[in-house]
Amino acid sequence: MLNSEKTLDQIVALCKGRGFVYPGSEIYGGLANTWDYGPLGVELKTNIKDAWRKKFIQENKYNVGLDSAILMNPQTWVASGHLGGFSDPLMDCCECKTRHRADQIIEDFDGTNVAGWSNEELSNYIKEKNIPCPNCGAHNFTDIRQFNLMFKTFQGVTEDSKDEIYLRPETAQGIFVNFANIQRTTRRKVPFGVAQIGKSFRNEITPGKFIFRVREFEQMELEFFCKPGTDLEWFEYWRGFCRDWLYSLNIKPENLRLRDHDPEELCFYSKATTDFEYNFPFGWGELWGVADRTDYDLTQHIKTSGKNLEYFDGTTNERYIPYVIEPSLGVERLFLAVLCEAYDEEMLDEEKNDKRIVMHFHPALAPYKCAVLPLSKKLNEQAEEVFQNLSKKFMVDYDDAGSIGKRYRRQDEIGTPFCITYDFDSVEDGCVTVRDRDTMEQVRLPISELEAFIEEKIAF
Amino acid sequence: MLNSEKTLDQIVALCKGRGFVYPGSEIYGGLANTWDYGPLGVELKTNIKDAWRKKFIQENKYNVGLDSAILMNPQTWVASGHLGGFSDPLMDCCECKTRHRADQIIEDFDGTNVAGWSNEELSNYIKEKNIPCPNCGAHNFTDIRQFNLMFKTFQGVTEDSKDEIYLRPETAQGIFVNFANIQRTTRRKVPFGVAQIGKSFRNEITPGKFIFRVREFEQMELEFFCKPGTDLEWFEYWRGFCRDWLYSLNIKPENLRLRDHDPEELCFYSKATTDFEYNFPFGWGELWGVADRTDYDLTQHIKTSGKNLEYFDGTTNERYIPYVIEPSLGVERLFLAVLCEAYDEEMLDEEKNDKRIVMHFHPALAPYKCAVLPLSKKLNEQAEEVFQNLSKKFMVDYDDAGSIGKRYRRQDEIGTPFCITYDFDSVEDGCVTVRDRDTMEQVRLPISELEAFIEEKIAF
Repeated sequence: MLNSEKTLDQIVALCKGRGFVYPGSEIYGGLANTWDYGPLGVELKTNIKDAWRKKFIQENKYNVGLDSAILMNPQTWVASGHLGGFSDPLMDCCECKTRHRADQIIEDFDGTNVAGWSNEELSNYIKEKNIPCPNCGAHNFTDIRQFNLMFKTFQGVTEDSKDEIYLRPETAQGIFVNFANIQRTTRRKVPFGVAQIGKSFRNEITPGKFIFRVREFEQMELEFFCKPGTDLEWFEYWRGFCRDWLYSLNIKPENLRLRDHDPEELCFYSKATTDFEYNFPFGWGELWGVADRTDYDLTQHIKTSGKNLEYFDGTTNERYIPYVIEPSLGVERLFLAVLCEAYDEEMLDEEKNDKRIVMHFHPALAPYKCAVLPLSKKLNEQAEEVFQNLSKKFMVDYDDAGSIGKRYRRQDEIGTPFCITYDFDSVEDGCVTVRDRDTMEQVRLPISELEAFIEEKIAF
Repeated sequence: MLNSEKTLDQIVALCKGRGFVYPGSEIYGGLANTWDYGPLGVELKTNIKDAWRKKFIQENKYNVGLDSAILMNPQTWVASGHLGGFSDPLMDCCECKTRHRADQIIEDFDGTNVAGWSNEELSNYIKEKNIPCPNCGAHNFTDIRQFNLMFKTFQGVTEDSKDEIYLRPETAQGIFVNFANIQRTTRRKVPFGVAQIGKSFRNEITPGKFIFRVREFEQMELEFFCKPGTDLEWFEYWRGFCRDWLYSLNIKPENLRLRDHDPEELCFYSKATTDFEYNFPFGWGELWGVADRTDYDLTQHIKTSGKNLEYFDGTTNERYIPYVIEPSLGVERLFLAVLCEAYDEEMLDEEKNDKRIVMHFHPALAPYKCAVLPLSKKLNEQAEEVFQNLSKKFMVDYDDAGSIGKRYRRQDEIGTPFCITYDFDSVEDGCVTVRDRDTMEQVRLPISELEAFIEEKIAF
């Protein structure tokens, strides 16, 4: 890196300028921290999700997939506790009329971890430390009130409260309510897992930090059902599996830390929890949570629904409620971590002040796997044939505008691992020049070997 | 087929029994026609979306992808007309208090196409034809009122009307508001298209027919921007492209009809529209709409936002608002069509009354590409190695329970194209038996050739 540190602003600018991420509804002045994933962003996001599916479902003999609905029967949220307890402690500044999260004000003030604190404890601490309004500096807050984070809507054509439903705040509950259906239809034996990717919604009062905290986000969640007593072993297994998966996608160990919750920090139903934190440009932020949730969720659904969700083990003739290990990851947060990890500015020639921005994506995650660049527009016909053949296998860019040097820089900036230059010799010898994004080295390869060459490099 | 016709009930039963589609929130008595996609359903759905992305984005030199947010600035729906006009004509039966869509009552009564009719015309027709309440048979309806189909919710912590936002009723508008951003960042020249897959929500008063009409659904939409005057040519192009894509996924021509709208049936802004209708078990139903929407959408957004969304053609120095061709397809509807098309019951031995249910999915769409079946549990270790190697490339099932015949039937029912039996000879000769789902023929193949054999068959 040229700069001592990459900044969030640099990454946001690259995202907008190159078509990774645009502000949502931008022509109408946006909508409170919503974001749209452009032509490159949608490919990167899809590749992240595919990489997760491949290792957590396709290659994993324990796990199967699920895609449950966003709109669920509200009893689900009674059972899960979201209707009762899923809320933020909010207070208003009486001077400047801005609204704030009490827990966040404290954490931003002196870094105190307030997990599990009551409204009274939060309020007392703010008074004791004389913490000011972050907006106007006054010390005149209202009492703290709890605001539910679920988005409410109405189904049917009336707005009676009986038609109130919610946008799911997490995908996990869709797995729990389907536990019996999935176990029965797949005839799986415990231990087995159910993995799901899908959108969730949380009415955060202070979304921000680009795509780090958003109201509409996508989760990749696994609920792994195991026999009580084996749960801590499986917790360790998935904790390690998730860490290794991040490493295999080129997340550097020094940018990842695994923070195990202390006993007093654990949710009352959890036996063990680890937060995976990534070293974002704005500091360490939560990326992945891995938790041993015991039999809490299934037990809650048994109580609320009256249905028997016990598992019967045909080998030992035992009946029990399985324990659950939950690795829960936000797609957008990993997307941001991957961008931060990949971003680099390199000085190529100090004298000429020739530098490049390059995204060192893992080739499996790169939006385009290669770009086909005809040396001259006269070669478009032949070069397009190369494009057509390769694009049957993976995403390929095509660029015939400007000097080759400029085109290389453009591909570096969007992280394309290989540039394929089709020149006048190619017509004769059936070979092309392949340039490596990271080393900038070039090799001459037969066109017939391109597909296998690239397939091998992008394998994951 | 054994039966003269496959019924929707047969398909729903198979879906639930084998883990394609479960009723949503089932342990809580469901939620008005929501559905969850089980371990097999999520694979089929993913394969359908991948097949679309491959042909509409990856291999297509004109199109790029997008993934815009579900929550958009409400001005979007002012511009698109959804806030003003996206509503159903509803009326109540004064006798039995049930609510009905006036247009649907007429269509169900005598098949009259009422597209574009006013409330008055609908009301008069119902009186004229003496159409009864479908529930109680009475002739005592209220006047028709319009109900907006958008789900409303609130962002932030108040429920003031200024915080009212909507769940998008279509993905298309996310493309239009990003037109300038995408054109600029990809440096595309018209003609080019933007393709998007994502969830949309419509507060339908009468959802039903399994997954055919649901409130929460997924769309695959392409907005193809072209120069005015070339639009009808591109309309024909995409009309044919979409039809051929369906054929290539084994949708039979006799089950598909393309219904071109008559001039009087066209929306006021559309120059041409074709409905693709599929022959579902309950009759012909709309699958895909392809429309020439002219410059209507971009013009509306220019008017509402005040932004200049014109395209500048650097070659001819012309400025114009591009025309748009929109092929819009519902994932769930195609999912249902694929299920209906694939479902078959075959009599194998009349005397023994030996029959099988088999899903003749296109191999690219089949949830599992093959299943590894060890002849004996003693062979599990070796067979699992075959499973591990193949599952690096595609989804593979593994089944060691019951007789081989029963295991074949189970795989037939879920549409697995190939069953791979690992037997005692395999240990010696390194070969396995590969059974074809459709012909039930078996060949002996070296394990080392399996991957290439299957890859070739599932290519799309």
